[in-house]
Amino acid sequence: MNLLSFQDVLNAHQLIKPYVHRTPVLTSSLMNQLTGSDIYFKCENFQKVGAFKARGGCNAIFSLSDDDASKGVVAHSSGNHGAAVAYAARERGIPAVIVMPDDSLKCKFEAVASYGAEIIQCKPGTINREAAQDVVVAERGMIPIHPYNNLKVMAGQGTAALELFEEVVDLDMLIMPVGGGGLLAGNTIVAKQHGIKVFGIEPDLANAAFQSRKANEHIKLDKSSTVADGLRSSIGDLNYAITKDLVDDFFCVKENAIVPAQKWFMTRLKQVIEPSCAVPVAWLLTQPEIIKGKKIGVIITGGNADL
Amino acid sequence: MNLLSFQDVLNAHQLIKPYVHRTPVLTSSLMNQLTGSDIYFKCENFQKVGAFKARGGCNAIFSLSDDDASKGVVAHSSGNHGAAVAYAARERGIPAVIVMPDDSLKCKFEAVASYGAEIIQCKPGTINREAAQDVVVAERGMIPIHPYNNLKVMAGQGTAALELFEEVVDLDMLIMPVGGGGLLAGNTIVAKQHGIKVFGIEPDLANAAFQSRKANEHIKLDKSSTVADGLRSSIGDLNYAITKDLVDDFFCVKENAIVPAQKWFMTRLKQVIEPSCAVPVAWLLTQPEIIKGKKIGVIITGGNADL
Repeated sequence: MNLLSFQDVLNAHQLIKPYVHRTPVLTSSLMNQLTGSDIYFKCENFQKVGAFKARGGCNAIFSLSDDDASKGVVAHSSGNHGAAVAYAARERGIPAVIVMPDDSLKCKFEAVASYGAEIIQCKPGTINREAAQDVVVAERGMIPIHPYNNLKVMAGQGTAALELFEEVVDLDMLIMPVGGGGLLAGNTIVAKQHGIKVFGIEPDLANAAFQSRKANEHIKLDKSSTVADGLRSSIGDLNYAITKDLVDDFFCVKENAIVPAQKWFMTRLKQVIEPSCAVPVAWLLTQPEIIKGKKIGVIITGGNADL
Repeated sequence: MNLLSFQDVLNAHQLIKPYVHRTPVLTSSLMNQLTGSDIYFKCENFQKVGAFKARGGCNAIFSLSDDDASKGVVAHSSGNHGAAVAYAARERGIPAVIVMPDDSLKCKFEAVASYGAEIIQCKPGTINREAAQDVVVAERGMIPIHPYNNLKVMAGQGTAALELFEEVVDLDMLIMPVGGGGLLAGNTIVAKQHGIKVFGIEPDLANAAFQSRKANEHIKLDKSSTVADGLRSSIGDLNYAITKDLVDDFFCVKENAIVPAQKWFMTRLKQVIEPSCAVPVAWLLTQPEIIKGKKIGVIITGGNADL
């Protein structure tokens, strides 16, 4: 069964091009020297809404039929997905409701509001968030946009690797953080089209994909408290199904390595990254043998950090 | 008298190309929207040593004759120039001594040391720094590299605009911060070759170039305590002579606008910049009438901030 194809990502790229940045690919001789490898960072922290999520949000919303689009969209999110849906809805000129737990960061509320979306606050926790979203769907008929367990979202996220591989050829491997697996699914499809290895990196405290690989079955964990707030979700059903035979390996990083890696990256590479994005950076800095001498793509996923 | 020519900058570009990054040019739709203009950031915070100073340092040091180079180089600096001279000397394979005031930031000591330069500590203050450097010159015959009042340094700095104008055509104006005027001199020469207006921005507390323009004579100020530590020097003699008839205007920003602009830029544009670099950003954010509807190049000078 072919849930998600390379062609889906190519189609997404054509569709979302007018609404997202082609982000720069940057290198760091310091990072190369430290790790003994040749690393290319695809800088989605410079993407619209400050994260790769703009790609998936735009693809999901611009893929809606005019009829569905006219109903508006709803998402629940404390973070970048909410901003992405709000942004994409504004670009398409349709209404959006973002359900946000009332403990979300002030800057996240501001970001969503700045795109003109209606915000509905709820108590924290997945159950409360989903319940609040269900009410919006039931009462107002809006279309829910899932942050990762959605094929259009995955295809959108995959356009990051598509652009990276256009610019940098002969990569040996692609490295990215894993939460719900939207980024992982889309970009793995593209990497495998090019014969490139894929490694997913998770925080020790939220390593559902790593555990699923070990157990050879889909394991979901209770929501984690890792500082990498974008990676607290377990890998989704579709995401697991699509990636389980394709990803080469998963690795975990210690919780206490994440914030130091974030600070190190900001100080030395002069780019603002969020904690979730620091997870693969932390792993690279442990200088694993597997990356030595290799040409590596790394997706710098987002820069929405609370400075 | 033609102290510095466009050809000097072209020559510098050829000479230093192997040793410096061609830094990316980035844009921000948020910034464009806020200012009503079309802004292109030349991101020298991603340059070697984290600042444009690598360009001038490399040109000065690779321009030395083999005989002079063999004597080694010396510079006094609490900041980016020291790192640039240390880096360039290492690349040329010659010894470097950096005189650093003992109140320099720890990260600055580490940066200079990481390039293998010898550090000599002195008491703070220009007199003490110059005295310590003079001793090195007298006793060891090393060649002093001035941070801005040096034609090779200026020509090197000008390569930033050279690259920017290759990538972005039809700019109306070029904007940069002004301290000693090394950046200003080199890049003004290039801008004027292209018929592009030049505006220099200074902190209120360190506005020697602005005051010199008003008085129509070279004014030097006592060393300032502005938070923009890279701009505390007054514009140098050669720098003033080269730029006084060429720069279109100078503007100043309030001291208390600098750090907020730095934080805003980091939060919204996801790039780490140092306070000196935030000076033109602060000015842009006041949305001056003069930039409205214009296509503008801005040199993002460095990212060596103490986070």
